[in-house]
Amino acid sequence: MAEPKRVLVLHGPNLNLLGYREMNVYGAKPLEDIDEDIKKRAGDMGIEVRILQSNSEGQLIDTIHEHRTWAGGIIINPGGLSHYSISLRDALAAVRMPVVEVHVTNIFSREEFRRTSVISPVCIGIISGFGGFGYLLALEAVADVMEATV
Amino acid sequence: MAEPKRVLVLHGPNLNLLGYREMNVYGAKPLEDIDEDIKKRAGDMGIEVRILQSNSEGQLIDTIHEHRTWAGGIIINPGGLSHYSISLRDALAAVRMPVVEVHVTNIFSREEFRRTSVISPVCIGIISGFGGFGYLLALEAVADVMEATV
Amino acid sequence: MAEPKRVLVLHGPNLNLLGYREMNVYGAKPLEDIDEDIKKRAGDMGIEVRILQSNSEGQLIDTIHEHRTWAGGIIINPGGLSHYSISLRDALAAVRMPVVEVHVTNIFSREEFRRTSVISPVCIGIISGFGGFGYLLALEAVADVMEATV
Amino acid sequence: MAEPKRVLVLHGPNLNLLGYREMNVYGAKPLEDIDEDIKKRAGDMGIEVRILQSNSEGQLIDTIHEHRTWAGGIIINPGGLSHYSISLRDALAAVRMPVVEVHVTNIFSREEFRRTSVISPVCIGIISGFGGFGYLLALEAVADVMEATV
Amino acid sequence: MAEPKRVLVLHGPNLNLLGYREMNVYGAKPLEDIDEDIKKRAGDMGIEVRILQSNSEGQLIDTIHEHRTWAGGIIINPGGLSHYSISLRDALAAVRMPVVEVHVTNIFSREEFRRTSVISPVCIGIISGFGGFGYLLALEAVADVMEATV
Amino acid sequence: MAEPKRVLVLHGPNLNLLGYREMNVYGAKPLEDIDEDIKKRAGDMGIEVRILQSNSEGQLIDTIHEHRTWAGGIIINPGGLSHYSISLRDALAAVRMPVVEVHVTNIFSREEFRRTSVISPVCIGIISGFGGFGYLLALEAVADVMEATV
Amino acid sequence: MAEPKRVLVLHGPNLNLLGYREMNVYGAKPLEDIDEDIKKRAGDMGIEVRILQSNSEGQLIDTIHEHRTWAGGIIINPGGLSHYSISLRDALAAVRMPVVEVHVTNIFSREEFRRTSVISPVCIGIISGFGGFGYLLALEAVADVMEATV
Amino acid sequence: MAEPKRVLVLHGPNLNLLGYREMNVYGAKPLEDIDEDIKKRAGDMGIEVRILQSNSEGQLIDTIHEHRTWAGGIIINPGGLSHYSISLRDALAAVRMPVVEVHVTNIFSREEFRRTSVISPVCIGIISGFGGFGYLLALEAVADVMEATV
Amino acid sequence: MAEPKRVLVLHGPNLNLLGYREMNVYGAKPLEDIDEDIKKRAGDMGIEVRILQSNSEGQLIDTIHEHRTWAGGIIINPGGLSHYSISLRDALAAVRMPVVEVHVTNIFSREEFRRTSVISPVCIGIISGFGGFGYLLALEAVADVMEATV
Amino acid sequence: MAEPKRVLVLHGPNLNLLGYREMNVYGAKPLEDIDEDIKKRAGDMGIEVRILQSNSEGQLIDTIHEHRTWAGGIIINPGGLSHYSISLRDALAAVRMPVVEVHVTNIFSREEFRRTSVISPVCIGIISGFGGFGYLLALEAVADVMEATV
Amino acid sequence: MAEPKRVLVLHGPNLNLLGYREMNVYGAKPLEDIDEDIKKRAGDMGIEVRILQSNSEGQLIDTIHEHRTWAGGIIINPGGLSHYSISLRDALAAVRMPVVEVHVTNIFSREEFRRTSVISPVCIGIISGFGGFGYLLALEAVADVMEATV
Amino acid sequence: MAEPKRVLVLHGPNLNLLGYREMNVYGAKPLEDIDEDIKKRAGDMGIEVRILQSNSEGQLIDTIHEHRTWAGGIIINPGGLSHYSISLRDALAAVRMPVVEVHVTNIFSREEFRRTSVISPVCIGIISGFGGFGYLLALEAVADVMEATV
Repeated sequence: MAEPKRVLVLHGPNLNLLGYREMNVYGAKPLEDIDEDIKKRAGDMGIEVRILQSNSEGQLIDTIHEHRTWAGGIIINPGGLSHYSISLRDALAAVRMPVVEVHVTNIFSREEFRRTSVISPVCIGIISGFGGFGYLLALEAVADVMEATV
Repeated sequence: MAEPKRVLVLHGPNLNLLGYREMNVYGAKPLEDIDEDIKKRAGDMGIEVRILQSNSEGQLIDTIHEHRTWAGGIIINPGGLSHYSISLRDALAAVRMPVVEVHVTNIFSREEFRRTSVISPVCIGIISGFGGFGYLLALEAVADVMEATV
Repeated sequence: MAEPKRVLVLHGPNLNLLGYREMNVYGAKPLEDIDEDIKKRAGDMGIEVRILQSNSEGQLIDTIHEHRTWAGGIIINPGGLSHYSISLRDALAAVRMPVVEVHVTNIFSREEFRRTSVISPVCIGIISGFGGFGYLLALEAVADVMEATV
Repeated sequence: MAEPKRVLVLHGPNLNLLGYREMNVYGAKPLEDIDEDIKKRAGDMGIEVRILQSNSEGQLIDTIHEHRTWAGGIIINPGGLSHYSISLRDALAAVRMPVVEVHVTNIFSREEFRRTSVISPVCIGIISGFGGFGYLLALEAVADVMEATV
Repeated sequence: MAEPKRVLVLHGPNLNLLGYREMNVYGAKPLEDIDEDIKKRAGDMGIEVRILQSNSEGQLIDTIHEHRTWAGGIIINPGGLSHYSISLRDALAAVRMPVVEVHVTNIFSREEFRRTSVISPVCIGIISGFGGFGYLLALEAVADVMEATV
Repeated sequence: MAEPKRVLVLHGPNLNLLGYREMNVYGAKPLEDIDEDIKKRAGDMGIEVRILQSNSEGQLIDTIHEHRTWAGGIIINPGGLSHYSISLRDALAAVRMPVVEVHVTNIFSREEFRRTSVISPVCIGIISGFGGFGYLLALEAVADVMEATV
Repeated sequence: MAEPKRVLVLHGPNLNLLGYREMNVYGAKPLEDIDEDIKKRAGDMGIEVRILQSNSEGQLIDTIHEHRTWAGGIIINPGGLSHYSISLRDALAAVRMPVVEVHVTNIFSREEFRRTSVISPVCIGIISGFGGFGYLLALEAVADVMEATV
Repeated sequence: MAEPKRVLVLHGPNLNLLGYREMNVYGAKPLEDIDEDIKKRAGDMGIEVRILQSNSEGQLIDTIHEHRTWAGGIIINPGGLSHYSISLRDALAAVRMPVVEVHVTNIFSREEFRRTSVISPVCIGIISGFGGFGYLLALEAVADVMEATV
Repeated sequence: MAEPKRVLVLHGPNLNLLGYREMNVYGAKPLEDIDEDIKKRAGDMGIEVRILQSNSEGQLIDTIHEHRTWAGGIIINPGGLSHYSISLRDALAAVRMPVVEVHVTNIFSREEFRRTSVISPVCIGIISGFGGFGYLLALEAVADVMEATV
Repeated sequence: MAEPKRVLVLHGPNLNLLGYREMNVYGAKPLEDIDEDIKKRAGDMGIEVRILQSNSEGQLIDTIHEHRTWAGGIIINPGGLSHYSISLRDALAAVRMPVVEVHVTNIFSREEFRRTSVISPVCIGIISGFGGFGYLLALEAVADVMEATV
Repeated sequence: MAEPKRVLVLHGPNLNLLGYREMNVYGAKPLEDIDEDIKKRAGDMGIEVRILQSNSEGQLIDTIHEHRTWAGGIIINPGGLSHYSISLRDALAAVRMPVVEVHVTNIFSREEFRRTSVISPVCIGIISGFGGFGYLLALEAVADVMEATV
Repeated sequence: MAEPKRVLVLHGPNLNLLGYREMNVYGAKPLEDIDEDIKKRAGDMGIEVRILQSNSEGQLIDTIHEHRTWAGGIIINPGGLSHYSISLRDALAAVRMPVVEVHVTNIFSREEFRRTSVISPVCIGIISGFGGFGYLLALEAVADVMEATV
């Protein structure tokens, strides 16, 4: 079993404020609760997860690099970095494993500039608009892909 | 129970060729098998589904109108119509229920013109890139939203 | 009297939901009532009208073709097709009679993409923003033009 | 009767040359005759009108301001100012009453730069392409709206 | 002889009016006569043809699908659909056989919006500007390609 | 003392309606009161001010020209002219003295077209978004610059 | 001699400051001197001229209208209005006589926004970059055209 | 017989390398062989041809000028010049005879910049994507047009 | 007194070099001196300030988050981040307090790319072009707003 | 007399056809006659001229280089090269003498692509729209500049 | 010897993965080996080097600042930051010494968004496409410039 | 040794004026001296070089074709042709050998239109901004690549 089911979950800038900021836009559930849900669902699915939130592009890239061999898949909500961080994109492309992009809101029904993600082209797919529940869907999605490619 | 869990699933133009065309892009699973998976998962979740594939924009709009009161949610893969059919968009906006947009491929890693969906802004969310499995994720997503809004 | 005053009135996609959908945007008057108003006003003006609503671009084009010799003028609300249907535009240009474009809402004060109509350049004029009453203004306008060109 | 039916009619730059200039484009009817038609129709409808033509953006804005309390509605043909005068637009938005934009020609079938009116988004509607007759339609339109909002 | 020379010829929206509409632009030859020319030339070349004209995008797509195995090549004049119908494009790409795009007029010397065809990138070639004669050239072209690929 | 502290304050089109129009956007303080505040603060600072409001681009330009030698600095709120009046820009550039651009609202958080000021590149700075108080800040700013350049 | 050689010369906004403002850009010769040169050269050529400078778009348009029958040609330096005043353009197009556009500087080697003149398309020609001398060239040019069309 | 059937065939830059360069893109047939095919087909059709290949824009223009009276039609593959040479375009427009544009590849399915030909608008038609065979189709096309216009 | 006057002042990337770099552009005053001025003026106004300079987007965001409850207002000079850091923008929007954007130079008279700030739309206002003095104006501005909203 | 009045006159591609091609656009006067007019006027003004027409960009550049020391000024009608030949532009900029750009037609009232000249920014001025007479105006203009700079 | 030859070499985000990621794109040589080559060549040339790789924009900026007086030149491969980091650009511009931009791949033959570097305009030159060897060329280039400016 | 180290060096339009024109931009070293440097360095490296300068696009293309078998690599400074000559690009792509693009200046810090080279995408790399020294770097670069591919 060369490639165990291990998934890295990354939350980008400002996601630590989930549940505290603009609740009409982002929902009332704090990130801690969402992380609990992720861990529980992952446990049920037999997936090992590591979760990190960071407001620093550099730290997110470092973390991706460090998990190059540990992880078999990545779930990432790049937050505001989605729209300009080609460095983050390059990091995800470099580690060559299935990446699922998650957004809590439907970025395609918001401001014009949010409708373009420079991250998407290096992901296998995107799940956007389903609040914290989107991470759970992403777990299922990345597991489905990892199974297919094992 | 004014709003039972009834979901309309719509496949747009050319999706009837799934499994037959450009399998390297769209995968090898025929639409019939995907529909079977949808029905089975829906059954497990206690959701009643109706599924339609059509190559005609007009027929898709008619079907949406006809299910205005029957359905509590819509899952739609608009196919090529995603990129220009403002009429389809208006139909989905008109019926005022949660709509989930599904794409078999990751439209954001393909040709430039596929990266803009005129449908997305009237949907609650989008799931793109997970093949036929995306419809099953969409079922979960729409159910989650319908529960929240009941 | 080679050219009797006969006017074809066409309602494009989703206009059948007038009075049922997004009433804050489109008003509360159902299409049936608007059609009654049109018929009544036309009767008062000695104009013969035929009215069709369709969600199908193809059917709208077919209808225009079929009335090439019957009608002396056309009133059309192209709905969402306004913004992309060059086929509908070509059909209207082909039948070479005065066409008046009507929109229930003021399309120029809505989303950016609604501000361009590919239909307008082949019409003699446009009336936009006056709800169902716009059709009655259009009747007067088309009659005025038909008189001038008889 | 706090809001009597009083309508301000404004003709922008160069409209004083109607009937004298480029008759193939703008028609042969002089502005004086059109104004007579407007007054007559207004009289028939029990509407009090004041009509002004000016080639000066500043004077048009001043006039709008001065009629803030007198008028219940405005009909304006902004002429060439349509395409750039954000100041005129702001003036119309400021006086918060129904405004109908009229164009003698169909501005949407002419040069590209004429297809965008910065005035339209602050109007309730637009009537374009029906020559001097368009003003009479505008009278009916503004009256219809004023009735609805009384 | 696994791949007999069978060619599907498709005429898109409004082409049924050829010979009746805007003859200065589209020429005076009716579509019926053009179809006769096609059949005669095809007969001379030993090619079996089926010809369909439709104003409905959906019907054109259905027809393409239905001839997936029958035809070895397609000649299509997409009419106004050329400029926006990504669904039609996807249908042509899906059936994986040589497609020749024909236009009666030279679309590159007309309005700006006619200069972009979303259909062209999935065709082997384009023939534009030679009136009804272009279909006969297309027959030769598609036959030449089919021979090369047999 | 070749360059006394004399400042010309200019209010562009529609600013005379401050306190009367769209108070949710522009605030409730009438221009007269703002002008009083300006005069008072200027008096405290030992600055001589002249204040003009005009809805006419020509009159604003004339006034700037006339104060070429009198004034040592200009504070201008160009209103809607900000977005297109290159003539006003040229007038300000021509008189070669420090100009401060003021906007009552934050023009960068409003409609897209308000985010570009053709006036800004010829000003030393901009103060936008602080209501009538912005003029007082501008007084301090222009005084600071005038001192530095004396 | 139905069309005597009478030429209207118009200077737009800020040209009254010629010789006083930005002399490195616009040259050191005052407008009065240029006007003297124009009158002298016109006298030598047997041309009657009237010259007006105005900072007001409205006044420029009024003046053009008033000289519709008097003048046989127009020389205009529209100043900053060149780049946006469609009203001025319409006025020049309306009076249907040869118009020569003059610019003191070479507007095509300055800021990007100065490279587009909305006035040019309604002129017979443009002379740009030769300082005050350009007006004298324009006199010759308009005389040459007027001769040809007499 | 004032206008004999004489056709000038021009190959632009780099076409001399046909059969030698990028054969997967441009095919394996050398230009010499294609020219032989052209001559043979022309002979069969009773058309006199002259053929020139040049890598020099100037020489191509000179050749077009020199054949102004000799030729009754032109077939040109402008190669890379298609996308920028307005000089070549002007030369073709100047000689006022039917011109057919040929491309060996389908330029509309290649890089974005190849999809616009500045040559096309002055041609009667375009044939693109059929390799060397396209020249033979062009011969038929130009002959058909020349017959119609004799 | 639930909301004491406490203001966070943030200097973005490279502002630590103020007084050392490109003094002709940014002025000769070192950041330390500007900070002293800020503290002194704040003291005079009874405002408590905390000041941070950082070249790291992540650290700036962290600092904003940490002061969510401490601060009643923010003054920020985002430096180069102004033009792309949507993450910084989201951080400022998330903490829901008045933010004033300051720039030492007039960013609207510099390179094109500096004229758009992605930060501005989430601020109450902007002060740009007044060197270090701009921070003092910002203190007054933010105090004025905080008073109004207490 | 270090800088005698010697002027190089260059006609770009296709100008040799003047008087033969599209006379409604370019006029009926052959280039030979225009050249005679130029020589005669130059003689009257005491200017020595050399005139060259070429369809080759390379030859035009060579000629400019060769006249670097001979000529004191250049008059050039770049023809179609105006719109793309940055090489020609660089050649003109390199020889550092006054250049006047001439166009026979008013390029600003023709097709969109003709409205931008890459040559203009390196010229002292432009004269466009006065037919062959424009060269004579250019002679006067270049002489006026050469005098000023002697 | 006020300015010794000391060069700072900076590797931006993801370059630490060189030799491990996408080797078909970036080559198989690890960064450690490239750094060894740089040090060796620098030693041969008598240049003192310091080398840093970082995934953090902030750390790169800090490092540049810290070497303001130590270094006489900078070699930087900004990685993905090339395309958006105006902060990094400002840091390089601020330290006022020769900067050479290096890219391992030819960024101009890759995706559209990689073809624009916001860094380039503040560098003396760019070397792109020569793999790790490009750093050695950059050493020579920066030395050549430093010699010229000593 | 099928592929000896033979390199073709091409200088495009206006490079013959190096050392004579705009020395502040292009440097004071004449092309002859640069060519001497190239020959000397090539000799030292055991590379055989041929060098050509031409102002003619056609001649440059011809020369590239003629050296298809002789040369193993090309160094080209396309001068102004860089920005539009797709014909030159196609010639370089056709000969299928490593090409290095050189620019004497840093084209990315100059006018906007110079920042795009249509040549770059078919080169292995670019060296821009190092004056005549750039050719020597290019020699090293092309040699390095040729070694790797032998």
